[in-house]
Amino acid sequence: MATRNYVTRREYDAWIAECAALAIACRYPIQAEMINDNTGLVFGDDQYEAFVNGMWSREPYEVFAIFQALNEPAIQGLPEGGLEWAQFGGLCDKLMIVHPGKFCSPHLHWRKTEFYEVVLGEMELYYASDILEDKRLQVTKKGLVSSHPMPKGERRPSGVRLPKGREHTYDKLTEYRRLGVGEPKFVMHRKHLHAFGCPPDAKTPVVIREGSAYSHEPTATGKASILSNWQGIHDNGFLLEGLDEGRLKNHIRES
Amino acid sequence: MATRNYVTRREYDAWIAECAALAIACRYPIQAEMINDNTGLVFGDDQYEAFVNGMWSREPYEVFAIFQALNEPAIQGLPEGGLEWAQFGGLCDKLMIVHPGKFCSPHLHWRKTEFYEVVLGEMELYYASDILEDKRLQVTKKGLVSSHPMPKGERRPSGVRLPKGREHTYDKLTEYRRLGVGEPKFVMHRKHLHAFGCPPDAKTPVVIREGSAYSHEPTATGKASILSNWQGIHDNGFLLEGLDEGRLKNHIRES
Amino acid sequence: MATRNYVTRREYDAWIAECAALAIACRYPIQAEMINDNTGLVFGDDQYEAFVNGMWSREPYEVFAIFQALNEPAIQGLPEGGLEWAQFGGLCDKLMIVHPGKFCSPHLHWRKTEFYEVVLGEMELYYASDILEDKRLQVTKKGLVSSHPMPKGERRPSGVRLPKGREHTYDKLTEYRRLGVGEPKFVMHRKHLHAFGCPPDAKTPVVIREGSAYSHEPTATGKASILSNWQGIHDNGFLLEGLDEGRLKNHIRES
Amino acid sequence: MATRNYVTRREYDAWIAECAALAIACRYPIQAEMINDNTGLVFGDDQYEAFVNGMWSREPYEVFAIFQALNEPAIQGLPEGGLEWAQFGGLCDKLMIVHPGKFCSPHLHWRKTEFYEVVLGEMELYYASDILEDKRLQVTKKGLVSSHPMPKGERRPSGVRLPKGREHTYDKLTEYRRLGVGEPKFVMHRKHLHAFGCPPDAKTPVVIREGSAYSHEPTATGKASILSNWQGIHDNGFLLEGLDEGRLKNHIRES
Repeated sequence: MATRNYVTRREYDAWIAECAALAIACRYPIQAEMINDNTGLVFGDDQYEAFVNGMWSREPYEVFAIFQALNEPAIQGLPEGGLEWAQFGGLCDKLMIVHPGKFCSPHLHWRKTEFYEVVLGEMELYYASDILEDKRLQVTKKGLVSSHPMPKGERRPSGVRLPKGREHTYDKLTEYRRLGVGEPKFVMHRKHLHAFGCPPDAKTPVVIREGSAYSHEPTATGKASILSNWQGIHDNGFLLEGLDEGRLKNHIRES
Repeated sequence: MATRNYVTRREYDAWIAECAALAIACRYPIQAEMINDNTGLVFGDDQYEAFVNGMWSREPYEVFAIFQALNEPAIQGLPEGGLEWAQFGGLCDKLMIVHPGKFCSPHLHWRKTEFYEVVLGEMELYYASDILEDKRLQVTKKGLVSSHPMPKGERRPSGVRLPKGREHTYDKLTEYRRLGVGEPKFVMHRKHLHAFGCPPDAKTPVVIREGSAYSHEPTATGKASILSNWQGIHDNGFLLEGLDEGRLKNHIRES
Repeated sequence: MATRNYVTRREYDAWIAECAALAIACRYPIQAEMINDNTGLVFGDDQYEAFVNGMWSREPYEVFAIFQALNEPAIQGLPEGGLEWAQFGGLCDKLMIVHPGKFCSPHLHWRKTEFYEVVLGEMELYYASDILEDKRLQVTKKGLVSSHPMPKGERRPSGVRLPKGREHTYDKLTEYRRLGVGEPKFVMHRKHLHAFGCPPDAKTPVVIREGSAYSHEPTATGKASILSNWQGIHDNGFLLEGLDEGRLKNHIRES
Repeated sequence: MATRNYVTRREYDAWIAECAALAIACRYPIQAEMINDNTGLVFGDDQYEAFVNGMWSREPYEVFAIFQALNEPAIQGLPEGGLEWAQFGGLCDKLMIVHPGKFCSPHLHWRKTEFYEVVLGEMELYYASDILEDKRLQVTKKGLVSSHPMPKGERRPSGVRLPKGREHTYDKLTEYRRLGVGEPKFVMHRKHLHAFGCPPDAKTPVVIREGSAYSHEPTATGKASILSNWQGIHDNGFLLEGLDEGRLKNHIRES
């Protein structure tokens, strides 16, 4: 049973301030409006337990920070006929910071293709190298372009400590890669399951630049979208039920 | 009259090696295959004149370097109905290095929206804040989505030294911005005219990260595209005629 | 009255791990042995109060971290006649990280001249531009080389929040400077009083490279010195009595 | 026979501007006054041959650049009795940039102890691990403190291409080390022979921070020293005769 289902204002602000400082040290162009109550992501009520021992406990929880510098629909100047498909395009740029031992929960995006560039530390990537049909997530391969599949990864090392009680949600992500600084950018295609984490014994959080198509996120920034019919879109499909709703608002306890 | 219509192998290799070292110092993930005979761009035969006094002469010429880390069509997993419009999407990531006084020639992309992040130095940006109809470039506003226009810029400072004999090609790019390190990313929409340069008195070349939709370039990399019907596409429309062809192959003189 | 005279193991380790990650992001060559129970400095028992609200509370306390990469007596190859004076020479190199609102306590070194290079953020420097005679600290100007005095600073801004109950110890440090990234290195001469801090509203801790003569520190590293007659030397003279002893060992509460 | 005993103004300025840009990209605090006609070092008339094919030819020549940020005698506040020995102390901080294949010529300093931190690329270090007696250089071990010797290195790889006609000057530097980014700082003691270079196949010049005691250099900056009796000191002893004089002034051909 979890002993916590909230983060205190002090804990949250310290966590995000630490991440923002690290982002600035890594030369990412952080703006004031990128630091807010949606910058930190906690994947479900039971993951607030991470704050009992704090971000540097190296314990496995699904929690990390995103600084989003750009989310551009890129519809300006598009022929009107293309508007229907523009949800699969657009441009987004963000910096993600995962503390040692922490994870991003297994998920896919129906529309968004993305790629990673590791800026500091090492990224442990878990993914499925093909599109897996899934009834609940409404993924079917029929009618989809199948141009170039994902490259295979390595076998996951045996010692990896996955988030407690959630180990099974990583089962379908059979491919494992360790990405480092200076390596080629790694593309994660839409509709492919993926998760990632930072090695628990790392000296630094892993800092990752993510470039992608437009990010249909159920957050404050997403809601400000200019395209009224895009506003209801949640493009994140999590393997664990209920996560997307859980992410809509952090439980930050003031005082 | 130009005294040069070529660059020597030694000059070219020294220029690109210098830029690659600067890119690595700026932590861009340079790979061996990103350094080749298309990395340097010379915009027309008469611009080889730039090599008489070299990259550090601070003289105005249209010549700079691009290190392209990724050019991803992003069609994998797309519903087949969207394939027709995928040319307007996709993901590209590159680093551009412009020496003091040098420029990228005025142009637009019919399909590609892009954005800039200055990594080192200062970027002088020249652009048109609206889509300008142009018969030769076959740009018409009819039938285009007009969602959010470009922000206005400042008035161009009077002292700017534009490339000789090409000053008129900058006339329609009435907006001017100076972008620096740490500032918000700046979006340049498709079909909007733009050019950029590095201040001639700068202490460093300007180093710019460009994120964008797929880059339909008439270069070796572009030709390797997996989509056979994309291979003929040149998405660069230059205001000065003949430039795109001129860029297809650098005139490198092997001593 | 202080509510705390210790730091917990978890708090201490999280603080130092955060600083080490920031140091690595700033490209300082951190080695495993530079991370230990003397890396964090707490200037007196009452300053543990800083940990009640944590490093990001922006409250004024005297506490910061030092990563020491080198402390070299530089006596190898010295003519024996110079050995007597070698305590004033040698080479030390360290990285100092001060969180927003935090300070290094007013002090001087009898032997050590040092200089600062700001790597990230802004450094608020407080100092006396001349050697001030002081009976308790046994500083007298008689018999000293007086070659070039310190440059004057600005007047201290009125709003600065100094550590509570210690404001008076900053009185003699009448000169104030704000040092930033890219500025010339600033020399602090031996026997000159100085203190420094990070602006409380800063987005990042201030990260400072300090180069100096040999650092005669009463810490584990200092005690390992090869020069047996140097081992008793404490070269830090604090204006507030008792501080040097207080720094000998952090009160880290295991549990 | 050499075909060149000068560097043109354009070649010199381009070389130093390139190095300054790289230094700034590596976050070293370059100031305008650090860029001058003594920033580039050419070790002897025959080494101007390096400019025939340029800095990126990867050919072995003894030529590199130094940006000196600080040279502080550190005598302020010193007891007068120590003044006699202060020449062995003081503080200097510089950034050195060596292009692929280029070298710093074998030499020693009678007074100056120094240490290296590699900032970019790899440094090939050649040295003698003990003080070698040398009549011409007036080095004798008698009367010297011998506290801790230099660590041994590896055997020099067989393929190293040393500067033509100067290979023999590297004979006594039997120890070889390859130093990289993030590694511990490496101390080079006074009176120990050393030289260094950048691997000819490197992707970047090697960029090295050097901290040291006061640098008694026969350059413009050195001459501005406040200590009149220090002004005649040349603390660089080269194994190849005539080098120090050759370094006093670069042969830059204006026109």
